[in-house]
Amino acid sequence: MAGVGTPDPNSSWLSDEELAEVRRRLPLLYVEAVPVRVDGMGVVTSVGLLLRANPQGAITRTVVSGRVMFGETIRDSLFRHLEKDLGPIAFPQLPASPIPFQVAEYFPIPGLSPYLDERQHAVSLAYVVPVTGTCEPRQDALELTWMTPAEASSNAVHAEMEGGRGTLLRAALASVGVLG
Amino acid sequence: MAGVGTPDPNSSWLSDEELAEVRRRLPLLYVEAVPVRVDGMGVVTSVGLLLRANPQGAITRTVVSGRVMFGETIRDSLFRHLEKDLGPIAFPQLPASPIPFQVAEYFPIPGLSPYLDERQHAVSLAYVVPVTGTCEPRQDALELTWMTPAEASSNAVHAEMEGGRGTLLRAALASVGVLG
Amino acid sequence: MAGVGTPDPNSSWLSDEELAEVRRRLPLLYVEAVPVRVDGMGVVTSVGLLLRANPQGAITRTVVSGRVMFGETIRDSLFRHLEKDLGPIAFPQLPASPIPFQVAEYFPIPGLSPYLDERQHAVSLAYVVPVTGTCEPRQDALELTWMTPAEASSNAVHAEMEGGRGTLLRAALASVGVLG
Amino acid sequence: MAGVGTPDPNSSWLSDEELAEVRRRLPLLYVEAVPVRVDGMGVVTSVGLLLRANPQGAITRTVVSGRVMFGETIRDSLFRHLEKDLGPIAFPQLPASPIPFQVAEYFPIPGLSPYLDERQHAVSLAYVVPVTGTCEPRQDALELTWMTPAEASSNAVHAEMEGGRGTLLRAALASVGVLG
Repeated sequence: MAGVGTPDPNSSWLSDEELAEVRRRLPLLYVEAVPVRVDGMGVVTSVGLLLRANPQGAITRTVVSGRVMFGETIRDSLFRHLEKDLGPIAFPQLPASPIPFQVAEYFPIPGLSPYLDERQHAVSLAYVVPVTGTCEPRQDALELTWMTPAEASSNAVHAEMEGGRGTLLRAALASVGVLG
Repeated sequence: MAGVGTPDPNSSWLSDEELAEVRRRLPLLYVEAVPVRVDGMGVVTSVGLLLRANPQGAITRTVVSGRVMFGETIRDSLFRHLEKDLGPIAFPQLPASPIPFQVAEYFPIPGLSPYLDERQHAVSLAYVVPVTGTCEPRQDALELTWMTPAEASSNAVHAEMEGGRGTLLRAALASVGVLG
Repeated sequence: MAGVGTPDPNSSWLSDEELAEVRRRLPLLYVEAVPVRVDGMGVVTSVGLLLRANPQGAITRTVVSGRVMFGETIRDSLFRHLEKDLGPIAFPQLPASPIPFQVAEYFPIPGLSPYLDERQHAVSLAYVVPVTGTCEPRQDALELTWMTPAEASSNAVHAEMEGGRGTLLRAALASVGVLG
Repeated sequence: MAGVGTPDPNSSWLSDEELAEVRRRLPLLYVEAVPVRVDGMGVVTSVGLLLRANPQGAITRTVVSGRVMFGETIRDSLFRHLEKDLGPIAFPQLPASPIPFQVAEYFPIPGLSPYLDERQHAVSLAYVVPVTGTCEPRQDALELTWMTPAEASSNAVHAEMEGGRGTLLRAALASVGVLG
């Protein structure tokens, strides 16, 4: 999920060369998270999308995303990537259930699935994660925008997301009953 | 789900007057089904929508829908309503899991949920159901149209569905990974 | 879910006689909740079960349970019954997703499903609900016991639950990945 | 899912040495399937478990399991491993939904999750898959046993499964509403 995804500063388990090699041989496991705010009854009231420049310089929207490391649980990986993208005081509430709302299969060539990642074959377990604190994206060129579920359901937002993440976002909204 | 839903010829457990009375006092339990065709790998290739005239004479699209009777299991009710709307040789494959892809709460006044039914408070358990046979809608004014997932995801189809069923359809498509 | 379930003090929409009549004619809609405590990563660490005497005087364990009223959303109903059974400062975190982990169909005669309620045909949407506050059961003869997921998975606890709720509890534990 | 899992004869994308190296550096993606038979209403009536000798010579039970290859969709991988373990005329009905009933995280050391695989860190997407044909396990030392959901729920069967697969099986049964 290279250009359009989230750089991973902690990929110390493999050198860049090794990772590049593995990327041509194995599907890599990712987690993705759609941060949301909920009201006192658990209803999703707003949805957070990350804004960033892709390698071509275009501004795109995306969700929290990153690779699962060797020996790391999915929960630990989700937490680490949420902290990386939303800062240390976002206070995400990881779901009690480990079952993702969607499994997104990213392939380097189009047509095999709705999801595309020119760099690799990645399989991503995607979760909706309520956050209760303050989000302060820590990385360069990252900004977080909150919008209503209706805005997040719009064709305009769909068009600003790459690699099929507009489809992933709609599935996220549907899973919590707020897709427009 | 009165005008916009499916008439229920079998509501013999309650007289019409009794049912009208109960409708002002209790939430009624419904099942809904989105019939689909799948390929050999289980991928949804087309989606069936019912065409009918609503009480105002407008043509609308809807899904299979009907009330759960006293003493009837959800599976029996799903099967009965699928047969009522799709005919006896549709051969629906009821899901092994009893967990619906969505719970649609229809209220007689708007704003409480995405779903509206002016007649009653109905809570509907909604399922995606592959059918392998031939669909021959048996009731008056009913026709079944098959469309691709992309067509079913369109704003045009969304606008032709009443009571929030456009939203329900999108949630159905998302749950099987084919929402556009 | 009479004797073994939760009395419902708010059933003002129907008189007792009317409700008794309706119970022989229509399936009634219920919600059930398994209260849990989670750690900072969302993992369920303990499970709350209610202790009460059934009409025969035997001590049984059960979960939070109650009827959905006319005009009431499922979330409102869940919240109301959680407050009724756990007190006003339990601070339940209702799930963002409205999809239950299980649909339990209670019938007055055995054999139609794993669930039995001699009083009625009830269909229950069941949720796992993390609570973050203090639970103080408000009703007579109610006590809340916290136990580990392993204890809650045991045959001993299963045998202390009536009407199939031991099965429902195991499905709850499985849905959050902690069934033993 | 070494000894207790399913050997993968098609791992041509990586040499054995390369795969051994990668296994110490990356989580590997697996799929698992619990084959079931369903009745005309979709209710699971029997569950298929594979019998095999583990490297220590003990007889154990397991489910269909195998690695997802580079460029392979989850559906293709599921189908390939079902065919490998159940033969070419099992006619599995892959689910319309790509969402697994459970995500099983296998770690080489115990305690991080209910799942253990001494060879590797593997993350497995697990599905319940109805089969309609005849199962003829093709590989050496493999036999398929059909049992009722009640038998499959028993402690005896649980004890015959390794690496946490007894827990996975119970979650499978719960997801289709037939856990005892």
